[in-house]
Amino acid sequence: MRISKKIITFIHAARIAHLATADAGGQPLVIPICFAFDGKEFFSPIDEKPKRMAPRKLKRLRNIDENSHVSLVIDRYQEDWRKLAYILVFGKATILLGGRKHRRSVRLLRRKYRQYHSMAIDQRPMIVIRPLHVKAWGNL
Amino acid sequence: MRISKKIITFIHAARIAHLATADAGGQPLVIPICFAFDGKEFFSPIDEKPKRMAPRKLKRLRNIDENSHVSLVIDRYQEDWRKLAYILVFGKATILLGGRKHRRSVRLLRRKYRQYHSMAIDQRPMIVIRPLHVKAWGNL
Repeated sequence: MRISKKIITFIHAARIAHLATADAGGQPLVIPICFAFDGKEFFSPIDEKPKRMAPRKLKRLRNIDENSHVSLVIDRYQEDWRKLAYILVFGKATILLGGRKHRRSVRLLRRKYRQYHSMAIDQRPMIVIRPLHVKAWGNL
Repeated sequence: MRISKKIITFIHAARIAHLATADAGGQPLVIPICFAFDGKEFFSPIDEKPKRMAPRKLKRLRNIDENSHVSLVIDRYQEDWRKLAYILVFGKATILLGGRKHRRSVRLLRRKYRQYHSMAIDQRPMIVIRPLHVKAWGNL
């Protein structure tokens, strides 16, 4: 799908997004994520921010295995509510374990976040989100 | 359920949260919300930030009608990732249209956000979220 330049600029300026997944029973899960966007798809790594479990057991990955429908929001909050804005994305998520697209997403993420330079995100699963519907709200 | 003082302090300091609902088909929706917390439940109004439709038709309300399971996250992002933190809530949502608890939640919200003083949130549906499970992550 085509996404407008204004929306792409807003997305590129954001440091975090919020990702909602849901399990097969319909229980939603929302978490803050770091992400890169290549103009077509969103990439979110499983990083090494302290986790207590093996990456494949992470609830977000199990949810995507069960149900690939996800929602993503990128928003700006300000106390002047005339300046509020968000981009809401409905999409399909897949998990990459390696390959060319995985390597490209690692490069994009390391370009955006220097914090990833020293993390082995190249050896971890990568969530890829293909937008099916994008909605803009407020004052972008 | 009992929630620790440290978690309650973190929740009270936040100006926004992100709420995930899902429809009966398992499609998640995540949106930024303003909220108040009374130590036991979360309250999020349907406010007058520009909406194009009647409040009862809002997707988040239709989702809660279909599926009361929700997830809420309150997080802090900083470029120093040692300071990242979030509180993740899994809960059951209900919608109040009026009554004593509705009036109390309007007072709480107006105390927290002066922006609500001039908005008719007392005449709109109120989302109430009762936490069933609360998880803290990172450096609160």
